[in-house]
Amino acid sequence: MFLLDKHRGLPAYVPGDHEEGGGFIRLNTNESPYPPSPGVAAAVEREIGKLNYYNDPDCTALREALARRYGVAPSQVIAANGSDEILYFAFMAFSDGEHPIALPDITYGYYDLFAASLGIPLEKIPLKADFTLDYRDYCGVGKTIVFPNPNAPTGYAIPLEQIAEIARTNPDNVVIIDEAYVDFGAESALSLIGQHENLLIVRTFSKSRSMAGARIGFAMGSEALISDLETIRNSVNLYSVSRMAQAAGVAAIREDDYYMANCRRIIEAREFTTRMLRDQGFEVLDSLGNFVFAKPSAMSAAALKFQLRERGILVRHWDKDRIRDYLRITIGTMQEMQALDAAIEMIFGRA
Amino acid sequence: MFLLDKHRGLPAYVPGDHEEGGGFIRLNTNESPYPPSPGVAAAVEREIGKLNYYNDPDCTALREALARRYGVAPSQVIAANGSDEILYFAFMAFSDGEHPIALPDITYGYYDLFAASLGIPLEKIPLKADFTLDYRDYCGVGKTIVFPNPNAPTGYAIPLEQIAEIARTNPDNVVIIDEAYVDFGAESALSLIGQHENLLIVRTFSKSRSMAGARIGFAMGSEALISDLETIRNSVNLYSVSRMAQAAGVAAIREDDYYMANCRRIIEAREFTTRMLRDQGFEVLDSLGNFVFAKPSAMSAAALKFQLRERGILVRHWDKDRIRDYLRITIGTMQEMQALDAAIEMIFGRA
Repeated sequence: MFLLDKHRGLPAYVPGDHEEGGGFIRLNTNESPYPPSPGVAAAVEREIGKLNYYNDPDCTALREALARRYGVAPSQVIAANGSDEILYFAFMAFSDGEHPIALPDITYGYYDLFAASLGIPLEKIPLKADFTLDYRDYCGVGKTIVFPNPNAPTGYAIPLEQIAEIARTNPDNVVIIDEAYVDFGAESALSLIGQHENLLIVRTFSKSRSMAGARIGFAMGSEALISDLETIRNSVNLYSVSRMAQAAGVAAIREDDYYMANCRRIIEAREFTTRMLRDQGFEVLDSLGNFVFAKPSAMSAAALKFQLRERGILVRHWDKDRIRDYLRITIGTMQEMQALDAAIEMIFGRA
Repeated sequence: MFLLDKHRGLPAYVPGDHEEGGGFIRLNTNESPYPPSPGVAAAVEREIGKLNYYNDPDCTALREALARRYGVAPSQVIAANGSDEILYFAFMAFSDGEHPIALPDITYGYYDLFAASLGIPLEKIPLKADFTLDYRDYCGVGKTIVFPNPNAPTGYAIPLEQIAEIARTNPDNVVIIDEAYVDFGAESALSLIGQHENLLIVRTFSKSRSMAGARIGFAMGSEALISDLETIRNSVNLYSVSRMAQAAGVAAIREDDYYMANCRRIIEAREFTTRMLRDQGFEVLDSLGNFVFAKPSAMSAAALKFQLRERGILVRHWDKDRIRDYLRITIGTMQEMQALDAAIEMIFGRA
C-alpha cells in the first residue's frame, strides 16, 4: 500500500518445492546430492567465536583463493552473496530503462525478475525449435547480453569460439556468461577474459561446490568490469558475504579435488539417467548440466511430476509455452537415479 | 568503463579500519566485545552437512522465533542479509527520484550511499547545535523518513510519543526507525506498529546480538509494509539469508538472556567510560548506544585517534563538518575501557 506504483505487479519468483525432511528425493532444484567437503565444517567453526566482529568487506582471502585456483588476479574477481547478487549487480551496473538486455526466451527464471525490479526492457531471443541457442542471434545486438552456458533448463552449451564472437561483435556492451553449471562438462569461457574486456564470467558455489545453502557467488572478468561491479556492490551491500560464507568458500577451494570428483560422479549418473529415460521412452536433451530436460511419452509431464511426488521424488515442471511437455530432473546420486528409474517403471505400469 | 553514466561517481563507503589480529582493541565499528552465545555454534554446525540444500527462502523458523520474542505475527517480520539489506529494500520500495527521503544531516553513513545508488534525493535536516534531533522538523514533511533511534554517532534517542507524532503527521509516507542500537537503553517504537501502519522498525543482530560477521537483519511493521518489502526482496535476492545465518539467528533468540545480560554489562561500561572521559576533560554526549561521542579538550580528535592507534586502540573519526572535533568510541568490555583510560592518561602526559 506504500509501495511505489512502479513496483506493483512485480513478478514473484516461484522456487522449486522447498521440503525439509519428509524423506523426499530432491531432484527439483539442481542441488548437489553431496555435502560440503570435510574442511568446510572446521573452517566455519573457527569463525563462530569471532562472529561479533564484522566480516572482511573485501572478501580478501576468498578472492585470493579463487584467483589462484583460476589463474587470474584478485582484482579480476568479485565475490557476493550468491551468484544471484552478482547478477543483480551486473544488471544494475550495465542496464536500465534505456539499456535493454538480450537473453534467451527459455532460461533461468530470475533474470526476468531482476530486470522487472530494475525496469530493464528485455529482448527475448527464442531458442531454436530444438532448444539450441544460435550464437548468431546475439552477434552485434548492441545490448547487454546474458545467458547461462550450459543453459538451464535445456543443458545445452555453446563452444568458446561462439562466445568469443558474441563478445567481439558487441564491443560496447557487457556479455554475461552465467557458468553456474559449467563444472559438469562444458568448457568455461574464462580463458577469453584477457582478450574481451566486456566478458563477465559468473560462477556459484551452489551447484558443483555443494553449498546452495551457504550463498557464495563470484564473477571473473577484466579489471575494468570487476571495478564497475565493485562500485555497485559498495553502494548496495558491502558486507554481504558473511564470515561463515567466506571461510566456507576458502576451505572448499582448498579441497577442490573433492568437488571435481563429485562432478565426475554426477556426470556418470547423468549419462546413466539419460540412457535410462530414453529406454523408458522419454525424449532427453544431451545435457551438460547437473540435470536433464526430458519429455515423457507415456504421460503428460505435469501428471508424471505429480505421480513422482506421490512416490517421494521431486522434479521440476513449468506450465509455460514451449516447455510444458518437459520435466527438468536434477542428477542426484546413482542410487537416487535408480530410485527414479524404479518409480517411473512403477508409474508406467511396466514393473 | 561499461558502467552506466548515472552510476559514475557513486560514493564509496569508508568502513572503520578492518584489522584482523595485531592485538588491536577494536573500539571503532560498534561491534560487541562478546562472542555469540554457546548455542549458536551447535546450531550452525548442524547446518554444515546440509549446505548442499538451499536455505528456506521464507526464513520461516527465524521469523517465527522473532515474532514470538517480540509479540508480533510472523507476517509482520521480514528477515534479510543484514539490516543494510532491509534498509536498501525499504529505500527502493518507498522512494525514488520523485520520492525523496528526509533524514538527519549527522547519521549513519550508509543511508547516503543507498540513496545515491537508487537516485533518491535527500532532504538533510540538520540536528540542533547540541546534536539533538527535534521531532517537529519531521512532522508533516510528506517524505519517506529514516533515522536511527538512538541516532549514531550521537547516541541520542527521542521518546516514543515523538515517533508516534512523526508517523501520525506523515500518513502517506513510511517512517523507518533504525533501531540498531535500541537494546542499549532506548525505548523501542515497536509498540506503535499496531496504530501506525506506516511505521517500520529495523533491527540487526550485529550489535546487541554479537553477530556483525553473520549478517542477520530484520524489520517489523504492519502486514501491509512487510508485504511491500517482501515484494522487493522477492525480485532482488530471495535466498539472501543463508542456512548458517538463519540457524544462528534462531539459536540466538533462544538464548536471549545471554545477550540482554551483555547489554547490561555494556551499559555499565558506557557509564564508566562517560565518567572517565569527562574526568579526562572530554565533552561527552549522554549516549544510549554501545558507543559514546566525545570531544577531547587537550588535543584534536584526529590527533588523538592517531595516538590511540599507536597504542593499539582503534576509534572512529570523521573529517566532516560539525563532527570533526569528535571521536566515536565503541563500548567494549570494562577491561578494554580501562585500557582506553590508561592510554589516554599516557597520551595526555598525566601518568
